Amino acid sequence: MDYLSLDPLLRQALQEDLGRGDVTTEAILRSNPHADAVRTAQVLARQRMILAGWPVFIRVFQLLGPVSGQARYGEGDRVEPGCLGTLEGPVSTLLKAERVALNFLQRLCGIATRTRGCVDRVGSSHVRVLDTRKTTPLWRSLEKYAVRAGGGQNHRMGLDDGVLIKENHIAAAGGVRAAVEACRERSGHLQQIRVEVTNQEELAVALDAGADVVLLDNMTVEEVRRSVATCAGRCLVEASGGITPRNLQAYAETGVDFVSMGSLTHSVASSDISLMLDPD
Amino acid sequence: MDYLSLDPLLRQALQEDLGRGDVTTEAILRSNPHADAVRTAQVLARQRMILAGWPVFIRVFQLLGPVSGQARYGEGDRVEPGCLGTLEGPVSTLLKAERVALNFLQRLCGIATRTRGCVDRVGSSHVRVLDTRKTTPLWRSLEKYAVRAGGGQNHRMGLDDGVLIKENHIAAAGGVRAAVEACRERSGHLQQIRVEVTNQEELAVALDAGADVVLLDNMTVEEVRRSVATCAGRCLVEASGGITPRNLQAYAETGVDFVSMGSLTHSVASSDISLMLDPD
Amino acid sequence: MDYLSLDPLLRQALQEDLGRGDVTTEAILRSNPHADAVRTAQVLARQRMILAGWPVFIRVFQLLGPVSGQARYGEGDRVEPGCLGTLEGPVSTLLKAERVALNFLQRLCGIATRTRGCVDRVGSSHVRVLDTRKTTPLWRSLEKYAVRAGGGQNHRMGLDDGVLIKENHIAAAGGVRAAVEACRERSGHLQQIRVEVTNQEELAVALDAGADVVLLDNMTVEEVRRSVATCAGRCLVEASGGITPRNLQAYAETGVDFVSMGSLTHSVASSDISLMLDPD
Amino acid sequence: MDYLSLDPLLRQALQEDLGRGDVTTEAILRSNPHADAVRTAQVLARQRMILAGWPVFIRVFQLLGPVSGQARYGEGDRVEPGCLGTLEGPVSTLLKAERVALNFLQRLCGIATRTRGCVDRVGSSHVRVLDTRKTTPLWRSLEKYAVRAGGGQNHRMGLDDGVLIKENHIAAAGGVRAAVEACRERSGHLQQIRVEVTNQEELAVALDAGADVVLLDNMTVEEVRRSVATCAGRCLVEASGGITPRNLQAYAETGVDFVSMGSLTHSVASSDISLMLDPD
Amino acid sequence: MDYLSLDPLLRQALQEDLGRGDVTTEAILRSNPHADAVRTAQVLARQRMILAGWPVFIRVFQLLGPVSGQARYGEGDRVEPGCLGTLEGPVSTLLKAERVALNFLQRLCGIATRTRGCVDRVGSSHVRVLDTRKTTPLWRSLEKYAVRAGGGQNHRMGLDDGVLIKENHIAAAGGVRAAVEACRERSGHLQQIRVEVTNQEELAVALDAGADVVLLDNMTVEEVRRSVATCAGRCLVEASGGITPRNLQAYAETGVDFVSMGSLTHSVASSDISLMLDPD
Amino acid sequence: MDYLSLDPLLRQALQEDLGRGDVTTEAILRSNPHADAVRTAQVLARQRMILAGWPVFIRVFQLLGPVSGQARYGEGDRVEPGCLGTLEGPVSTLLKAERVALNFLQRLCGIATRTRGCVDRVGSSHVRVLDTRKTTPLWRSLEKYAVRAGGGQNHRMGLDDGVLIKENHIAAAGGVRAAVEACRERSGHLQQIRVEVTNQEELAVALDAGADVVLLDNMTVEEVRRSVATCAGRCLVEASGGITPRNLQAYAETGVDFVSMGSLTHSVASSDISLMLDPD
Repeated sequence: MDYLSLDPLLRQALQEDLGRGDVTTEAILRSNPHADAVRTAQVLARQRMILAGWPVFIRVFQLLGPVSGQARYGEGDRVEPGCLGTLEGPVSTLLKAERVALNFLQRLCGIATRTRGCVDRVGSSHVRVLDTRKTTPLWRSLEKYAVRAGGGQNHRMGLDDGVLIKENHIAAAGGVRAAVEACRERSGHLQQIRVEVTNQEELAVALDAGADVVLLDNMTVEEVRRSVATCAGRCLVEASGGITPRNLQAYAETGVDFVSMGSLTHSVASSDISLMLDPD
Repeated sequence: MDYLSLDPLLRQALQEDLGRGDVTTEAILRSNPHADAVRTAQVLARQRMILAGWPVFIRVFQLLGPVSGQARYGEGDRVEPGCLGTLEGPVSTLLKAERVALNFLQRLCGIATRTRGCVDRVGSSHVRVLDTRKTTPLWRSLEKYAVRAGGGQNHRMGLDDGVLIKENHIAAAGGVRAAVEACRERSGHLQQIRVEVTNQEELAVALDAGADVVLLDNMTVEEVRRSVATCAGRCLVEASGGITPRNLQAYAETGVDFVSMGSLTHSVASSDISLMLDPD
Repeated sequence: MDYLSLDPLLRQALQEDLGRGDVTTEAILRSNPHADAVRTAQVLARQRMILAGWPVFIRVFQLLGPVSGQARYGEGDRVEPGCLGTLEGPVSTLLKAERVALNFLQRLCGIATRTRGCVDRVGSSHVRVLDTRKTTPLWRSLEKYAVRAGGGQNHRMGLDDGVLIKENHIAAAGGVRAAVEACRERSGHLQQIRVEVTNQEELAVALDAGADVVLLDNMTVEEVRRSVATCAGRCLVEASGGITPRNLQAYAETGVDFVSMGSLTHSVASSDISLMLDPD
Repeated sequence: MDYLSLDPLLRQALQEDLGRGDVTTEAILRSNPHADAVRTAQVLARQRMILAGWPVFIRVFQLLGPVSGQARYGEGDRVEPGCLGTLEGPVSTLLKAERVALNFLQRLCGIATRTRGCVDRVGSSHVRVLDTRKTTPLWRSLEKYAVRAGGGQNHRMGLDDGVLIKENHIAAAGGVRAAVEACRERSGHLQQIRVEVTNQEELAVALDAGADVVLLDNMTVEEVRRSVATCAGRCLVEASGGITPRNLQAYAETGVDFVSMGSLTHSVASSDISLMLDPD
Repeated sequence: MDYLSLDPLLRQALQEDLGRGDVTTEAILRSNPHADAVRTAQVLARQRMILAGWPVFIRVFQLLGPVSGQARYGEGDRVEPGCLGTLEGPVSTLLKAERVALNFLQRLCGIATRTRGCVDRVGSSHVRVLDTRKTTPLWRSLEKYAVRAGGGQNHRMGLDDGVLIKENHIAAAGGVRAAVEACRERSGHLQQIRVEVTNQEELAVALDAGADVVLLDNMTVEEVRRSVATCAGRCLVEASGGITPRNLQAYAETGVDFVSMGSLTHSVASSDISLMLDPD
Repeated sequence: MDYLSLDPLLRQALQEDLGRGDVTTEAILRSNPHADAVRTAQVLARQRMILAGWPVFIRVFQLLGPVSGQARYGEGDRVEPGCLGTLEGPVSTLLKAERVALNFLQRLCGIATRTRGCVDRVGSSHVRVLDTRKTTPLWRSLEKYAVRAGGGQNHRMGLDDGVLIKENHIAAAGGVRAAVEACRERSGHLQQIRVEVTNQEELAVALDAGADVVLLDNMTVEEVRRSVATCAGRCLVEASGGITPRNLQAYAETGVDFVSMGSLTHSVASSDISLMLDPD
């Protein structure tokens, strides 16, 4: 994300926490005129994680004051417990922005870490791990960024980002064939048609109607394997629904091209990170 | 939250997903002039959960079109798997807003469900389960609402909502006593002073300086019990840091007034909910 | 465009014209307490045109007051000089919003009309007429809508809508091959790579590097014909740059799949339309 | 325009094009860590034109990154084909903002060029060439600026900028006299009353009612000449409606004080300008 | 003001007071499910005043809920102590919006009342009482509206609303003559030039340079009288600076056309108005 | 206020005054290419006052151009007539922002001055002077800041900042006891309950229901004294309603803990301050 898009979100987040002002920090610093000196601080990883969001983390501080930061790792790197980076800036800015900045960083690292765990399970196969649109509202671009940092690949960014016919679209259109044909007719030449199917009958119709990608929704590993055989290379195949870190490998070995997992973004434990001012 | 505050967030979330427009729904409905009729749909709980956020869920749809909804449960109720409510509105609106509306509802139910689980563990003691400021940026009010729906109590809403002296404030002030005194002097008469302490020495100073509430940060159950004895009713006592559903009961039995848990909001699994159009 | 996206633009446009208030209308209506009755008005086409933007036109009025409208034509229809629709609403709303609403409608009809003229020249060939990103800033979605209403097809909606390697990207990457490979490596599996080439050498490299679509930039009709032969169906081919209504047919007959024309949106004469209150 | 007003428009325009990010530029630069160096570029005029909007052009880039620019001409100068200025900045910024910046510059130069053409036709007479409120919505201030750069003079900036009684106001008020009197009574002492009239009868009433300026709407050259004689210096006279570059001189010679032309802003061909990175 | 301009200000004001929500009203109404019935309320004037801002007052409520209101007086009317109007709506809306709505109404009535007091003192002379740009930031249009309701006339709405050369402009231009000539040359034909002068020498230059209006700044009554004689009808004359209700009449009798008073808007006592729920 | 919150308000205020641009300053400076040099200016206090808002004043200028300022006094200091500070910056910025910046500074100093006057009257007693929520809409934080600068203490910042049961809440709840109990039950453990009472009966019920603070509304000095005796230290006591600088001392001597005065913010005379460019 460019700052052009990012800054309004970060300002909104700071405003949300600051409200009418940080009463604690202002009381402490007003009492001690020397207190708002420039200080350094350590950013501490309390566990192993994949780093994602350091530039966002730093930017939060910078929207409040002249803070600079130095990370010891790059985005997507595996971080060991300990110092992952340092900050330097006015103590008032460090104190006021600390929680918001950490809230961003901890969630983004959590997503990248979870994603990396899944990508590692898929191992040497060519299967790509995809996210979904089950992201936290207002965090779409950030969460999809963290998925990429973790080694995953992004599915659609939004409803405008390519055709994907899902169960309710099929219900609205009156069937798989009608849905595919409507989209084919209305879309530009370069547009690919993706269809979500839930059983072999729908799959057969989708293939026949010329789908470019089929999403096998909530199928067992066995059904997925059978569907891959049916597709026989005529289209790309994605498995989705009910895929967890535990069964991921089994799905990956069915021969699908992609597995997508909503839990990469909708059920994430924040990584444990804290900020500690260095002694004066 | 009043619609005055809520609507801008929901519009922003819809915009995030719609981007330049829902190409799939528009293709399907344009091809079939009768397709954008009013339809009904079921909202299906795929697991047990505590309901939180139904009014938010409905409002998302209503910001795009004339949709009405009827829940079978009240906010904070325990929901059994199955239909938890119904919707009625133009099929185009149902299809376009579905994902965003579910993304809100699933997360809020996830938080309420997790909170209720913790509150239930505390059981008959008088200990209150608190959230923290470790909320998802841009979701503060919504997540705190879900905590209340789950039976928890809210800690500070933001940095402006009362004094809370934390580790880095103490470092900036030059000690617990200096920090408490600075805040005491600067705050109005009605303002309570809360101080986070990490050991018995700090606790003693905080008590001596007249703290109204002490937060025992990252202490073991044993240390918390000892601290409660030290406080001896002179102030309210909160345990925080490292408290999980597993050790929650042990902390609750130490005699503290509050336990606070960041994981209520920062490490949540979304509840599994889906939307299904009724047959035409 | 959904109202969610459209309304902020239209409000901004109304605000731009109203400033601190319409001094003329307010003076006239305040002097005559019966003057702000509901009135009807005719929307008059002063020339032949293709209709585009009637819903936008009506919406402008509706953001100021309870106005309803009825068009005699559908979007994309060929309009003959005369009444193209009617309005009904409070005379104050009709007077205040008239100019802004017409400014939208006239420009959108102008674009649709120009586009239809080009599409008609291409005639029975399969060549599609595309717009470009040379749209009026802040009008991207509206102008691309008008192009569709006129029978054209949309090129990229923005820089996020697919890879397109242009001359300056090639200069930055250090050559066509480097550019294509960088994009291939970084993009998802479904992403197509489009490359703009200016001569036969670049074309050969682009084909060899596996471009999915080539844009022949500022080539003569003869060069385009030669390039189409070179491509020999291995990729889609688009001609762009210097194509005008006059030479359009010649380019269309070269065998390209697409021609793109910036002038569809950047050099347009507004259609002549006016609004006339019906006699009281 | 001050940056205070301009920046929000330019940011909105950049956002419109960037959407979720420039996938091409990011792919190319990420693959080549040395690629985002500072580069220089030439801004090339492909035809003769009047320069307008260089500061806007530069500002677009600056809202994304540290770009500086140097024009070889001043605003309002006649530009010969060739280099009209240079840019220097990070190549990523140059690539991402190029199209938006050019879209602004090309349109503003187009308007200034068209205006200058008209001003030149009026020649040595004292007639002033005015624009109208038929500007592109959201571009009012920018387009009026370009008209001034081209040597034209601005008519009202908006509905709040002075009284102007038009045909539909007269219909609402119940006649020219009622309209003029209503405005006279409601306006401050310094306010001038302008009235649009379409025939000699309305003109006579307007003069009698004390109009300060009359606009002769859609009159032939002969009617305008007759009207000027009727006015006999009692008020300022403006001709508007149906005035084109071809008949402009004839209207100018009737003795009117002003001619106003909607086409200065509503029917403009963008000037042909491009940006070319210098070799590395 | 149209709602288009007004609503964003009123929403911002409600948001400012509501913050994260009205904890008192929500506690009271949640405890009593029948409590949020529709109730009526009286708006009580506690003193004599001129009414201004009733539509604004009502609109504040309506932005939160379905409230209707009925005033017993019209805008600009003299109100006697007692009920000045009634409201009807959900009790939650009445309670939440009460303070903000009253804050608007009380200030606007205060301005109108003060203005009327001044206008009454001027009495039968033709002198017009003007406001200034010394308005409360963010309230310009509202306060100028209240001045009109009180019988005053508005001076410039802002820096874009006509030329007014003040002391610091003269210092920047290098003298009165240079300033007037610069503005004359740069302004359109219809633009009037107003100049603020502080002594007879500046007045003489301003008249000689062709000022259309002169503002006599901080002159004594005697100096103003002398200046009026000097002007001798060649331009309009305004007295400003140091004019209070006490000396207003003396200034009015000097023969000036206008007196302007910053205190109409910058030093106002709010009118005393309260809201009382009717018994259930 | 942090700049994060302040800047949007200040930009909005500048925009309000600048509208489509400062025609006078632009005319003067465009005519004289050397005119927009850096100049210094004096900020002149025309009367005694308490300083409040200097950082806001400076920030207004800085949002338009590179202006620096130096105050001769600190916030809350007593200022003598004469120069209170100096500015340095481009003359165009000084001229364009002058009025808006002064409008902020004059009002904030007016509030601080009025507050200090009241605080001085209370003298050596321990009574604290409070403001109310009767602030100018959109100015809440600024006006409360000025009250603090004047030596006052802030009451609630908004409806979310603590429970305060007022007359209409009591009417909605059905009595004082019901209202207190509803709030007690719904609020967190740390929340204090404040109740406004108008007579001895309500006071008795409030005390009995366990109010933490009682507000004696519109009581005479004698009634307040009697109420203080009744409270006998069981709760904090505030007098409000009808308290003016004249009777303030009498109320202060009744033994109340607080007096609150709406007039600190709703009925204020701006302090007289002006800006004068230094000779070139």
